[in-house]
Amino acid sequence: MPETRRDFLRKVGIAGGAGVMYGTMAALGLAPAAAQTPTYTAPHQGDLRGGPKTIIVLGAGIAGLTAAYELGKAGYKVTVLEARNRPGGRNWTVRGGTVETDLKGITQTADFSRGEYMNAGPARIPQHHITLDYCRELGVPIEAFANQNANAYLYREGDTALSNRAVRHRAAKADVYGYVSELLAKATDQGALDAHLTPEDKESLIEFLTDFGDIGPKVPGDPGASFRYTGSPRRGYKTPPGAGLQEGTELPPYALSDVLASGVGNYFSFEFGWDQAMMMFQPVGGMDRIPYAFEKAIGPEKITYGAKVLGLRNTSSGIEVDHMTWEGQIRRLQADFGICTLPPHIAATVPGNLPARTIEALKYAEPTDAGKMGIEYSRRWWELDHRIYGGITNTDTDLRNIWYPCSGFNGGHGTLIGYYNVGSQARRFGAMHPDQRLARALELGAQVHGPVYARDVSAAFSVDWASVEHSEGAWTAWPSQTDPRYKELLEPAGNIYFAGSHLSHAISWQHGAMVSARAVVTSLHSRVTRT
Amino acid sequence: MPETRRDFLRKVGIAGGAGVMYGTMAALGLAPAAAQTPTYTAPHQGDLRGGPKTIIVLGAGIAGLTAAYELGKAGYKVTVLEARNRPGGRNWTVRGGTVETDLKGITQTADFSRGEYMNAGPARIPQHHITLDYCRELGVPIEAFANQNANAYLYREGDTALSNRAVRHRAAKADVYGYVSELLAKATDQGALDAHLTPEDKESLIEFLTDFGDIGPKVPGDPGASFRYTGSPRRGYKTPPGAGLQEGTELPPYALSDVLASGVGNYFSFEFGWDQAMMMFQPVGGMDRIPYAFEKAIGPEKITYGAKVLGLRNTSSGIEVDHMTWEGQIRRLQADFGICTLPPHIAATVPGNLPARTIEALKYAEPTDAGKMGIEYSRRWWELDHRIYGGITNTDTDLRNIWYPCSGFNGGHGTLIGYYNVGSQARRFGAMHPDQRLARALELGAQVHGPVYARDVSAAFSVDWASVEHSEGAWTAWPSQTDPRYKELLEPAGNIYFAGSHLSHAISWQHGAMVSARAVVTSLHSRVTRT
Repeated sequence: MPETRRDFLRKVGIAGGAGVMYGTMAALGLAPAAAQTPTYTAPHQGDLRGGPKTIIVLGAGIAGLTAAYELGKAGYKVTVLEARNRPGGRNWTVRGGTVETDLKGITQTADFSRGEYMNAGPARIPQHHITLDYCRELGVPIEAFANQNANAYLYREGDTALSNRAVRHRAAKADVYGYVSELLAKATDQGALDAHLTPEDKESLIEFLTDFGDIGPKVPGDPGASFRYTGSPRRGYKTPPGAGLQEGTELPPYALSDVLASGVGNYFSFEFGWDQAMMMFQPVGGMDRIPYAFEKAIGPEKITYGAKVLGLRNTSSGIEVDHMTWEGQIRRLQADFGICTLPPHIAATVPGNLPARTIEALKYAEPTDAGKMGIEYSRRWWELDHRIYGGITNTDTDLRNIWYPCSGFNGGHGTLIGYYNVGSQARRFGAMHPDQRLARALELGAQVHGPVYARDVSAAFSVDWASVEHSEGAWTAWPSQTDPRYKELLEPAGNIYFAGSHLSHAISWQHGAMVSARAVVTSLHSRVTRT
Repeated sequence: MPETRRDFLRKVGIAGGAGVMYGTMAALGLAPAAAQTPTYTAPHQGDLRGGPKTIIVLGAGIAGLTAAYELGKAGYKVTVLEARNRPGGRNWTVRGGTVETDLKGITQTADFSRGEYMNAGPARIPQHHITLDYCRELGVPIEAFANQNANAYLYREGDTALSNRAVRHRAAKADVYGYVSELLAKATDQGALDAHLTPEDKESLIEFLTDFGDIGPKVPGDPGASFRYTGSPRRGYKTPPGAGLQEGTELPPYALSDVLASGVGNYFSFEFGWDQAMMMFQPVGGMDRIPYAFEKAIGPEKITYGAKVLGLRNTSSGIEVDHMTWEGQIRRLQADFGICTLPPHIAATVPGNLPARTIEALKYAEPTDAGKMGIEYSRRWWELDHRIYGGITNTDTDLRNIWYPCSGFNGGHGTLIGYYNVGSQARRFGAMHPDQRLARALELGAQVHGPVYARDVSAAFSVDWASVEHSEGAWTAWPSQTDPRYKELLEPAGNIYFAGSHLSHAISWQHGAMVSARAVVTSLHSRVTRT
């Protein structure tokens, strides 16, 4: 009787019998998972032999939620105080009905259609970030985030043939890689690099460059004509390949000097950054699916919204927090420990008895400005007219980046990120009224996409993080992360711990907030179980 | 009274008033959409003044379905004959319960779990393919297909330090780009390319290379130490950046000669191919959602499944097709025109009265072999242990490519494409019994991923396209597409037209089948409305 498929699978899969030789990663010196994410051992509930300890977490951003969730799992009694009326902090998804008044007193009401949204804060997740592990653990479905698209544009101001116009990524890349390959192949072949390359190296290098740059062969006796880049199908077509005899008409390459002078290559390295290389992800339905999943897992009753912290003090037996409720009442809470996840420049202003060196450390932090605008259109013209399905157009205008949506493909409405900028560009947009921001965004976007950019707009919402209450900045960096002031905040001030992405080497990422929170949980738990 | 947000949007968006200056694409010489997809004007129903014409389409693959759909929309009376019991042809999604007997008489029954599948044929769609337009028109939801992943591996056999082991794409890319940049910057700076570069070019080029390769600066007076590549965070970490003081420990780069000799760079250009560059897409739930949507739009009653074509003849007034029904009865159908979408090498064997030159042309086609295996696992170890979420590992072993699934992220089960190979590699796998194919695939996969590759296997299914009935090949190419025999099939043989991706310059792609079908529809309709 023949063995069944399942029998067979069991045999080769588990027993790994004769004839099946498996390489072992350990033998090869590889430990792929360990090299991708920081290690963490969650505390166990059984560790708390002296009964549950009480914790007050200040802030229901990602650091606060992570700390509350991990401590809750280990048996701690956790209370989270949050000034906003929602979890997430800078993880903020703006939908139809979102109302926000900024620190200048300007109120915007988002009128995005049902299902449309903008992630005003974090919006993408690399594969190696533990954010994805929390998505798995908390049941938050994820989908691909398009951080790279050959059909998106590069737009550079200047005086070259490629300047002040939209250049497809694919064309810029083909030309830059083509010319780089031609030049290096020529130099290599002519012996200019013989001090650095063996004859075998030279042969392998030229073989690589021929494919990488789509360049021509060596022309014996004619160095000038050798290895020439004369364009490539990779860059796109005037008439694309089609039926029958339509083999396609390639677009000619841009000239070498124009390509180099234009700066179109200066964005390529973004694509292979440790934190930015594809594949990248986003939660289905908005980034705030993560904080809401945390809220559910922690227990909504353990989070007090609308609670403004008025005082934070170490006491002889623990900590004491005064806050004002949303009804305007002042309350005092006490606990064994506190975890402060407020932005450091805001935490520095909370009255209390934190040591002077802690306050000095908190003030050492430097908030960074960033701005984002969501623009909803009633027609997905970037797909229909430009064949751009997700991805990023990068400019050197004040828009900096335009993001095409990564969900709802081929649908009706769609919401672009009309700009995502930082620093002085963000400040120039931030200084405008939201209506003027939109007018300016449409003007600059039309430079890239043509008049279609200003048609069919159905809603818009903009965020200037410097003027967002409770944040006053997009993220918080440090002049130096080896400075004693930075190190000061890695240790508790009495019974008060500090957490947030600013206390990590993944600043501005949710991952940074999560690893920082885990470090505090580990430290706090170790202290509790030692005593 | 202040204007409302909607008033404002209407003003800036539609009127484009003072202060809003729009660049026009036309003025810039850009016509982005036209450069992406072939043009097509669908025939109008009103054109058929002499009443409906009748059409028999042979084959319900993508070409046949597209032709039937477009002609149906225009008012033609269409009948489709299909030998299989399903639409799609080589667009074939294998699910739990799929039973297939190959030409050698070997029967496989897929026992994939509910929701799991493998796309045995086409599996990815570029943005510029009209396949996406049909998805939109037919209401087939799409999602991103991961055609590129920095965390996936490259595996090359050989005798370098990088050989016979899994190398992350990101590490290979950082090292290759780093060394290429170092070498070209050195040659440029030392004047080796002064015949080709102006001083401004040189400055721009070195600025680009410094960013592109993450290389060091010029060291005045020390050419050897200038522009050195000494590794980069891009390539990954031994210990990744984490909380507090964990800034991360970078992995050192591979040596220049090893990088060049290993061939790890020889796959990079795949990522920027016209048809392969991200973003890429797939229908949600399997590629066969497209043929089933076509079936519904055409009308299932117009498609006869299980119909084997026995004869195809031009008659004085049209065409005549004999076929055997699945019950074994022989039927004769007549129509004004026929469209034959059978693979050409199979069409050449159909009895009838096609002219000798047509038969010769059909026989000129060359079928290509390809093989694919789906392996379902009960644990998504590639995500959990390797942090690989979608994408492709490329090898130079017989596996050629391993595809990680692009749906069901973070879930329980998942189905890899265990190999996707062509030519001799496909033939070697094809020659084996499916169980032996699996054993071999697990053995070769474990070289890359370690023993985990052979654990937790819950189902597998393999397709050797050369031995698939009604296809006898993965796709069909030509020695030359300017040969008169190729051109012969672009014209009707009497009242019989030919369509398929083999009659396009997008061979093997659904897009090719679609543009070919559209060309036939246009040609046929023009003939009908001329008379």
